[in-house]
Amino acid sequence: MSKGERHFLDLFFYPKSVAVVGASRNPDTPNFYLVPNLVKLKFPGKIYPVNPNAEEIMGLKAYPDLKSIEGDIDLVVISVPASKTLDIVRDCVAKGVKGVTLIPGGFSEAGESGRGLQDEISSLLRENGIRAIGPNALSPINTRNNFIIGFGPTEKLPRGWLSFIFQSGLYQPRLNWLLSDFNLYLSKLIDLGNKIDVNEVDALEYLAQDPETRVIAIHMESIAGDARKFMQLLKDTTREKPVIVLKTGRTAAGAKAASSHTGAIIKSSDAIVDAALKQSGAIRAQGLDEFFDLAKIFEYLPPLQKNRVAVATFPGGEGVIAADLCQFNGFTLAELSPETHGKLRSVFPTWDIPVNPFDMGVSAQFYDAADVYGVLLDALADDPNVDCLAIQTGGFFLAASGRLAKMFSDVVKKGKPVVTWAVDPVQGREMTQQLESKRIPVYPSAERAIKALSALYRYYSRQEIIG
Amino acid sequence: MSKGERHFLDLFFYPKSVAVVGASRNPDTPNFYLVPNLVKLKFPGKIYPVNPNAEEIMGLKAYPDLKSIEGDIDLVVISVPASKTLDIVRDCVAKGVKGVTLIPGGFSEAGESGRGLQDEISSLLRENGIRAIGPNALSPINTRNNFIIGFGPTEKLPRGWLSFIFQSGLYQPRLNWLLSDFNLYLSKLIDLGNKIDVNEVDALEYLAQDPETRVIAIHMESIAGDARKFMQLLKDTTREKPVIVLKTGRTAAGAKAASSHTGAIIKSSDAIVDAALKQSGAIRAQGLDEFFDLAKIFEYLPPLQKNRVAVATFPGGEGVIAADLCQFNGFTLAELSPETHGKLRSVFPTWDIPVNPFDMGVSAQFYDAADVYGVLLDALADDPNVDCLAIQTGGFFLAASGRLAKMFSDVVKKGKPVVTWAVDPVQGREMTQQLESKRIPVYPSAERAIKALSALYRYYSRQEIIG
Repeated sequence: MSKGERHFLDLFFYPKSVAVVGASRNPDTPNFYLVPNLVKLKFPGKIYPVNPNAEEIMGLKAYPDLKSIEGDIDLVVISVPASKTLDIVRDCVAKGVKGVTLIPGGFSEAGESGRGLQDEISSLLRENGIRAIGPNALSPINTRNNFIIGFGPTEKLPRGWLSFIFQSGLYQPRLNWLLSDFNLYLSKLIDLGNKIDVNEVDALEYLAQDPETRVIAIHMESIAGDARKFMQLLKDTTREKPVIVLKTGRTAAGAKAASSHTGAIIKSSDAIVDAALKQSGAIRAQGLDEFFDLAKIFEYLPPLQKNRVAVATFPGGEGVIAADLCQFNGFTLAELSPETHGKLRSVFPTWDIPVNPFDMGVSAQFYDAADVYGVLLDALADDPNVDCLAIQTGGFFLAASGRLAKMFSDVVKKGKPVVTWAVDPVQGREMTQQLESKRIPVYPSAERAIKALSALYRYYSRQEIIG
Repeated sequence: MSKGERHFLDLFFYPKSVAVVGASRNPDTPNFYLVPNLVKLKFPGKIYPVNPNAEEIMGLKAYPDLKSIEGDIDLVVISVPASKTLDIVRDCVAKGVKGVTLIPGGFSEAGESGRGLQDEISSLLRENGIRAIGPNALSPINTRNNFIIGFGPTEKLPRGWLSFIFQSGLYQPRLNWLLSDFNLYLSKLIDLGNKIDVNEVDALEYLAQDPETRVIAIHMESIAGDARKFMQLLKDTTREKPVIVLKTGRTAAGAKAASSHTGAIIKSSDAIVDAALKQSGAIRAQGLDEFFDLAKIFEYLPPLQKNRVAVATFPGGEGVIAADLCQFNGFTLAELSPETHGKLRSVFPTWDIPVNPFDMGVSAQFYDAADVYGVLLDALADDPNVDCLAIQTGGFFLAASGRLAKMFSDVVKKGKPVVTWAVDPVQGREMTQQLESKRIPVYPSAERAIKALSALYRYYSRQEIIG
């Protein structure tokens, strides 16, 4: 693709007009949410609901079929059973649409007849120059124009710099949670499904050059296209943008499940994939929690190139756990400066201060929570021996949460990444929302916080070495 | 200890009268909650708040000091700064109390002078035959008589068969969350702190013979007593009751943090501890989340001696992840019987059914959620090829949550352990409460659910082999 030329995937992320075939007025069906999400989140393009049994959906005129629509259609979202899909694709050809998203399952993953049907649709699309995502795929999502194709109610699309490539709708049931509670700030999302046309090479190529994407997270079961090309592209991309990869179907049992899920044929052993990913400079997530944890930290925080960490916990026993985790994950507990020792004196009782990890639980018995945090964070922000912070929040310190977000932000502004974790995820929810609105990540445990921080360090320190 | 004789720790778990020195009416101090927890949770024994500046606390007469109390005192809870503790202990001697819990920090973990003070108190207690927990320790808790010594508000004490030994107040800031949201069903809890007297051998000895304890979970930084004796006791105990161990202070950084936290001197390398734990038959938790996850599953579910698992997920991509996790964790995906295939036909579209893992996401597009679960769980409960179940919940299936708890319970009653995990922890909270009220564990991710199930299998299958 030469400079200035638009990538063909722009069509899917920035359609001017979208028809939704299978739009439903029954809230008990997944199809129900397709149109309301677009309307409520204020997608600015034209929306054409297609449903032969409705006059109107969400205040929009509904059409019995594609050919009844007066205007041009950039993108058709097809959400009807597999058996009816071919007819709709024929209508797309007749209407001259440019792209389709094929949502239904029941194709190559579903045995011989499904495979035949998928091949027939594939030929028809290719012959007519129609680009396609899916089948067996939801998406895309683009927060820049609030374009969203989704099966569940989505309250908001927080705009950020993180883009996802999914093999399947894995994210779909938890999308609203990821955006509203886990607080990911999204740029774009694409779900590939059975990859009849658009595959991981197209998607990565697009996001690599997308100025609105700074972090890429890829969930994949198989490589459908050219594996060598994909790995080269990955290698080129990771020099500019961190790329997190969750490769599933790693075991024989998982590979078998993948083939009946998206028809993925997994040819390479996990060890080969692992080696290739390492060489590419991608960050491999070991599980789903870690995948989202890493996506969050890379989008939230500035680079981290050194590994001297300061730790503060609320019960001292957690400090012991955090210290273990730091050492296991490549960090050194920072030797705090004499100035920091001096400052901490004012929020610790008379006895010897255990400085790193700092036991805020002891301070809490004698001093005001906000004062403890204030003195601690100021001191650590200015300490030249400290590169990053891992701090527990919540518990008695909830009272300080209003001021906490700003205190942490000020540390990050001085170039020191901060991770936190909550004592009590339920009680601490409001505090989490406050901190994460300022991109201070709050993880559910020390383990997850420090593992995520470690990925940040490993990626950026390697970058520095490579130069 | 001969049969029928009461263990001395009974004094701490079943005191008839308790004095709380340092009881406070200021809700901004941790001490505030000591008396209200006892009153609100209806501890049936006598409670004597001791505070020279209060006439009355929580409707109870307050006393200026211990000697002003008319009646006998079984246990004195001391929560004053370290510097004032020696005087209170002298009062305890004068009053002839039987036991004390020493809450404050600032002793052996806090340098030379703290160590000296701790030694002085230790001698005084020993000479006068007063048994002591701590210092630097909260506890105990006993759900059988609602006896609780705690720094935070605790809403309820759900009664169960799980007992904890803690090295420190690690659990304290999240205690209410553990009981009210994470839904642990507790028998007893003891926190040892600096172990001036009561140590891990005493605590384990007590819980090993306690008929109200069926599962034991131990958090430890060091072994203060006779390590050989402790390991032998552990070995004997694990033949009867599962014991989960979280050993922290595993690295040089962690060990250093432990010594400034509870004065723990860690003599053995992590590798030696690991080998000893393995030999003892204890189940080692690798982190704090896993510690509580395993505590939950052993208390909730019946034994699991075989490893053929049936998996059902809501998005199919999660089935691939779960299949990987099953294989990584020693499970075989069950080959479902032809009868099960037949039954599942009624809740799956026309194409080939991917039976294990079963993709409920496909079914959800065509069938009612409660029907899908009903057919699936009935079939799996009766399938002789299935030993246990790992099932995702939430998302579109939230609508079925009212009936779900009973459906899962019925499977467990047939001797097949069930673990579940939620799509969306926030949206699924009510469902989680329903399921866990019937002891169907709901974990935050497939990874945590399947790892916990694996521990259940490893413990009980080994038991079977050992005979």
